[in-house]
Amino acid sequence: MHITLNRPEARNAMSLAMVNELMDVFDWLENDAAGAEVRALVLRGADGHFCAGGDIKDMAGARQQAAEGDPEAFLRLNRRFGEMISTANRLPQVLITVLEGAVMGGGFGLACVSDVAIAAGDAKFGLPETGLGVIPAQIAPFVVQRIGLTRARRIALTGQRFDGHHALTLGVVHEVADSPTELDKKLAEVLGEIRRCAPNASRVTKQLVLDVGHMPMDELLDRAAADFAEAVASEEGQEGTLAFVQKRPPKWAADE
Amino acid sequence: MHITLNRPEARNAMSLAMVNELMDVFDWLENDAAGAEVRALVLRGADGHFCAGGDIKDMAGARQQAAEGDPEAFLRLNRRFGEMISTANRLPQVLITVLEGAVMGGGFGLACVSDVAIAAGDAKFGLPETGLGVIPAQIAPFVVQRIGLTRARRIALTGQRFDGHHALTLGVVHEVADSPTELDKKLAEVLGEIRRCAPNASRVTKQLVLDVGHMPMDELLDRAAADFAEAVASEEGQEGTLAFVQKRPPKWAADE
Amino acid sequence: MHITLNRPEARNAMSLAMVNELMDVFDWLENDAAGAEVRALVLRGADGHFCAGGDIKDMAGARQQAAEGDPEAFLRLNRRFGEMISTANRLPQVLITVLEGAVMGGGFGLACVSDVAIAAGDAKFGLPETGLGVIPAQIAPFVVQRIGLTRARRIALTGQRFDGHHALTLGVVHEVADSPTELDKKLAEVLGEIRRCAPNASRVTKQLVLDVGHMPMDELLDRAAADFAEAVASEEGQEGTLAFVQKRPPKWAADE
Repeated sequence: MHITLNRPEARNAMSLAMVNELMDVFDWLENDAAGAEVRALVLRGADGHFCAGGDIKDMAGARQQAAEGDPEAFLRLNRRFGEMISTANRLPQVLITVLEGAVMGGGFGLACVSDVAIAAGDAKFGLPETGLGVIPAQIAPFVVQRIGLTRARRIALTGQRFDGHHALTLGVVHEVADSPTELDKKLAEVLGEIRRCAPNASRVTKQLVLDVGHMPMDELLDRAAADFAEAVASEEGQEGTLAFVQKRPPKWAADE
Repeated sequence: MHITLNRPEARNAMSLAMVNELMDVFDWLENDAAGAEVRALVLRGADGHFCAGGDIKDMAGARQQAAEGDPEAFLRLNRRFGEMISTANRLPQVLITVLEGAVMGGGFGLACVSDVAIAAGDAKFGLPETGLGVIPAQIAPFVVQRIGLTRARRIALTGQRFDGHHALTLGVVHEVADSPTELDKKLAEVLGEIRRCAPNASRVTKQLVLDVGHMPMDELLDRAAADFAEAVASEEGQEGTLAFVQKRPPKWAADE
Repeated sequence: MHITLNRPEARNAMSLAMVNELMDVFDWLENDAAGAEVRALVLRGADGHFCAGGDIKDMAGARQQAAEGDPEAFLRLNRRFGEMISTANRLPQVLITVLEGAVMGGGFGLACVSDVAIAAGDAKFGLPETGLGVIPAQIAPFVVQRIGLTRARRIALTGQRFDGHHALTLGVVHEVADSPTELDKKLAEVLGEIRRCAPNASRVTKQLVLDVGHMPMDELLDRAAADFAEAVASEEGQEGTLAFVQKRPPKWAADE
């Protein structure tokens, strides 16, 4: 599935409407039988930018609501964005972000939860919030999870801007490309790799890696051993073994 | 604020007196209204060295105390140093370390809690403790927090020495400079970046990144959303918005 | 101590028999007085490969057992492998892996718990499991611990293969060598470094770094201060101080 953030007039700044639409899609991907057949989600932005951050009009709207006696308007708006990022992080599908142009604020946060992030060499990353007198509230925690406290504190406390090559060095992204052609080639390669991985085995594996550190290791490995036994006995496990013996690609790999 | 570790005759080895003096300053920075006006703390060493580790005379003193029937003398001396590092880690100000010459043992530990670490290319990092038959007790845990278990175990268990360039690769430091001029230039750039960040927003952001992993993520994001709403309504948030609309730097950025 | 995985006809694929033999050695290293005199364990594979993963015959055997009414045969086989990795991770000795040729699946997992990992530039790393319809159940969690979630999710969900140089960039290994001669030289250097570290101080330090994140930091630092006091008063601590004053190598460093 391919999703394009498409508000090029605002460098695809993330409006509340976009957040809600993404949440609808994520809900469908997680819970609907048809959605569950999607194996990978590619997220990119229209017209050479990924996403420039939060939307200014929504902020003005919340200010209006606050002025009219709704003190939690800003809190709700902000928190909703973080819910979207958290949901994106645990999508059962493989989430790929293609990062061009502005990858700022909320766009940076969204990039931080993708399974594979491919950046243009001249993409621009940063957390501009404190320069505007506010805080990267729903973003900085995902930056810490992405690249660790050491690198996150430097970025968060100096508002440093950096490009795609530096994003690779920091571990924000996995691949960097210096032309649109190379970017598309890298994306095609990654999609090819994912196609060779059994869909259900990938989902179980994603859950496994996400759970590391959130439960005792021995308990996690016990559950993983049961998942392994189940995978071996499953249709995928049987097809995988058979394909290996017969020296042919498994069915799911040809599924184009 | 600029602090210089100044015992050049001992390559600025960290004596108990220095630890206690630093703790007094940190206490003032954390709790005093005047201290709270400081936005960044730059920590460096006199005469081309940052800090060569613990002080030998204090060790001899503790040995004397132990011989005179105070069995906890070494424990107290050691633990006090770790308290200083823990306090430095959670300072509300942005902590910058400038790392030249010896960055060994306790000096290495102190470097590991800075928000921005700038190293000379020929600085010398390492944990010499096990080579002396003792352990990097109050240091190794901060090295693990800084660069992760994988890289920390190799350094801690082999006593490997390395320079500023390798420190950058390992993620110990954020910037490396190959001359004193370049070092000062990098420091000035970082200070310039920090000046553009709203002081209170920076403090709230620092607390936020430090808390990741120490409380459930959803709870942290709830608190952050409330902090965001407060920041928007604050004087800084209003000035930031106004300055943005008026296309001028906010007041705090001009504060030189 | 040197151990060679020696089933070259199967690129040293990890059979249950090998797992059990390794566990016997690990048990001796951990609990036997003679084993405790070993300071470092070097683990490598015969004939140019480290370890190509799990053994196919054991899988066939478990399939047979499952068919004969033992539904937990796969679970037990899988979990036993993870127990071996967990035990290797907490060995009191310094564990060094020398990684040539195939470092796949279980071989990759084992590499992920070594204190020092030295790879050949052309070694081949990867998690092929999902390509076979199963999951890297006892391996992926150790990959996350080794290189963090960000880099692990990309490898686990795409089955990406990579060489020793990329393994260094990812932080899987600490050193890379482009010839067998250079590999042996790097190993000799690391063993030389370890020889200069006091054996008991190294064990206490290894326990310390492994415990970071598994208990409150202040509690860990309290225990470490007590360990420090004990180390100072120990035979090693006294010899280390004396050797330093007398400007000679300590006894343990000459122990060749």
